[in-house]
Amino acid sequence: MNEELKDIGLRACRVKYELQKLTTEDKNKALYEVADLLIARADVILAENEKDLANGREKGMNEGLLDRLTLTKERIQGIAVSLRQVADLPDPVGEVLDDYTAKNGLHIIKKRVPMGVIGIIYESRPNVTADAFSLCFKTGNAVILKGGSDAIHSNTAIENVIRAALSACSIPEDAILLIKSTDREVTREFMKMKEYVDLLIPRGGAGLIRSVVENSTIPVIETGTGNCHIFVDESADQQKALEIILNAKTQRIGVCNACESLVIHRNIEKEFLPKLKKALDEKQVEVRGDKETMDVIDCVPATEEDFGTEYLALILSVKTVGDVREAIDHINRYTTHHSESILTEDPGNAEMFLNEVDAACVYHNCSTRFTDGFEFGLGAEIGISTQKLHARGPMGLKELTSYKYVIDGDYLVRS
Amino acid sequence: MNEELKDIGLRACRVKYELQKLTTEDKNKALYEVADLLIARADVILAENEKDLANGREKGMNEGLLDRLTLTKERIQGIAVSLRQVADLPDPVGEVLDDYTAKNGLHIIKKRVPMGVIGIIYESRPNVTADAFSLCFKTGNAVILKGGSDAIHSNTAIENVIRAALSACSIPEDAILLIKSTDREVTREFMKMKEYVDLLIPRGGAGLIRSVVENSTIPVIETGTGNCHIFVDESADQQKALEIILNAKTQRIGVCNACESLVIHRNIEKEFLPKLKKALDEKQVEVRGDKETMDVIDCVPATEEDFGTEYLALILSVKTVGDVREAIDHINRYTTHHSESILTEDPGNAEMFLNEVDAACVYHNCSTRFTDGFEFGLGAEIGISTQKLHARGPMGLKELTSYKYVIDGDYLVRS
Repeated sequence: MNEELKDIGLRACRVKYELQKLTTEDKNKALYEVADLLIARADVILAENEKDLANGREKGMNEGLLDRLTLTKERIQGIAVSLRQVADLPDPVGEVLDDYTAKNGLHIIKKRVPMGVIGIIYESRPNVTADAFSLCFKTGNAVILKGGSDAIHSNTAIENVIRAALSACSIPEDAILLIKSTDREVTREFMKMKEYVDLLIPRGGAGLIRSVVENSTIPVIETGTGNCHIFVDESADQQKALEIILNAKTQRIGVCNACESLVIHRNIEKEFLPKLKKALDEKQVEVRGDKETMDVIDCVPATEEDFGTEYLALILSVKTVGDVREAIDHINRYTTHHSESILTEDPGNAEMFLNEVDAACVYHNCSTRFTDGFEFGLGAEIGISTQKLHARGPMGLKELTSYKYVIDGDYLVRS
Repeated sequence: MNEELKDIGLRACRVKYELQKLTTEDKNKALYEVADLLIARADVILAENEKDLANGREKGMNEGLLDRLTLTKERIQGIAVSLRQVADLPDPVGEVLDDYTAKNGLHIIKKRVPMGVIGIIYESRPNVTADAFSLCFKTGNAVILKGGSDAIHSNTAIENVIRAALSACSIPEDAILLIKSTDREVTREFMKMKEYVDLLIPRGGAGLIRSVVENSTIPVIETGTGNCHIFVDESADQQKALEIILNAKTQRIGVCNACESLVIHRNIEKEFLPKLKKALDEKQVEVRGDKETMDVIDCVPATEEDFGTEYLALILSVKTVGDVREAIDHINRYTTHHSESILTEDPGNAEMFLNEVDAACVYHNCSTRFTDGFEFGLGAEIGISTQKLHARGPMGLKELTSYKYVIDGDYLVRS
């Protein structure tokens, strides 16, 4: 194994038991200290960030990526605000989930505990470094971070500030460990560090997530991909439906909870589609429709591939169906199990859709854009899970914990 | 992809939505029907089992394996009893885990739902076929089974009976799908069927489990391996400690919750070890001790490897420590995170051990043998998880479910 990885793995495992013993007060105080020090040392961080940006420009990085990579005084202020918000959230560690005496006399307490060591693999947003640290630290976990090589100077600067703040609070600095190597092979090795890491969370594009899911031997939570649908049933309020579709498609484009595909009831297509087309045209949204859609409005023909695509762009595919049954079947065929919405005045159709559509979040008369830890009131979010094991949908602090059974008996033996 | 696998995957996905809609009554009725039909068709199953046994004998299979493979009228009766017990358990599907209105006006219900399709890979015990089916079916899941090739005739016979019983209840037969191919390559391909399978659970020896963890792209729950320790603190009641150690080591030997290693406080070794040695000798248990142990009793020297070994045999390793701190550090170094016990009269030491030992089940003054779904009152058990994601320790019906967020709003858009 790569020497840096092995060293980091051992250090994380050494420190994890210390972190589990920290009181809520200790952890909150440290998070405030980190927030203050990030602001106090903003100039150092910005100077390091400038190196990453210069390298990026030299390599011809596009504007979108450069923007993601950029830190400013305001953005650092924003990171500090988030850190304090996490400090102010309730600490889930230690929560008693169950407490009972079994027939055999065992007194069994099921108690929420930290995971231990959490690994995060992410791309070029340096704010994730502080963000992921805060959520893992608040839940008593050590975190090993592997950020994008484009942000290595920024990430290292942020890590240094966090370590200095922890040290000032007499908390082991190794609560955060950033992998410095930018070799891709190291990332693949990291995904196999099962002996050291309890949970691995990829944060980034579909390619990164696929690579982690396919190569990791550490338990993974798959996050992010959202080919989200809205089904407009024949009884939907059409004016309000328009507003929801525009919100879900255009409020933010590059996000996983944006709507990518519209499913529409045949009985209203003649009335609804022209209004929709007009509204989408104003927002420069390209429509890719099935044959029936093309008979009603002027649009690009949708291929089979369109229905399976998360565009993350100003494009919307449209599929016509005869009833809610057909809508559900279409959605279950193409869903990435993220967020799906039905717009209808028919309670029976709504119930059927909500029960039978296989997604983390199923909505009735809402925009899919609501799938978000803050909107759900979780107070924080490490990502949105699209798998069914452990956590589904927006993941907050609780989702970064496990549990253990603590059992007491009077010298009991099994008979 | 192998044709059989693809066909099975598609069939499971086709049927999973139907299974999710079954009422608790439908499912329970079907489980009783399966139990009755297994008994009614016992002769057919036993005839098929005889073919497997004949093949096994021909291949020189050892007595232990032949015993695991063997079905009898009584064992089939036992399977039927288990099926009825599962039917009688409460159905976790549909349970409301949370119900609130968020600040933005969303009415959010977090609801327990089936996983979808569960895969089980197991070895030569044909009873697992009915057992795994019953737990997955009760929780509204389709199950794809890959049993050991040695049991293929028995498994196929049991599958046929289950399918006939389901059909008699007008329930889709594809709720159970047994992979018939005995090619090892097919097992590896099965572990990559991420598009079709939501959760994969290996049941068997350490080699099987390792292979699944290393090769699967489907989320896995790692089960089973138990290098379980008992720490005898200086204040422990020595007579009762002896009883617990004998129970944990010898009541059943080849099970994951058996004790494999003893950790003993230095201050009592001279008094306790000779008594222990005498009791273990009577049960033919070989002791492998560290240097200090060897100074007190006659035993085999323990190597570093011994402390990391799950013997599943009449062997016990012994390690001497100076205090509970050292005991915790030793155990956390060698634990497989299954079950660990402290025997002590000191409440402070007990608390420290229970908090700091990193295992699914931590015990105070109990045998490790209690780690079991039935002993914990779960009413059933699909396995014992030694990972921290999703489920830890004994897994019952709830652990075979996921959840979804069902959200209602009045045409809400995100601002």
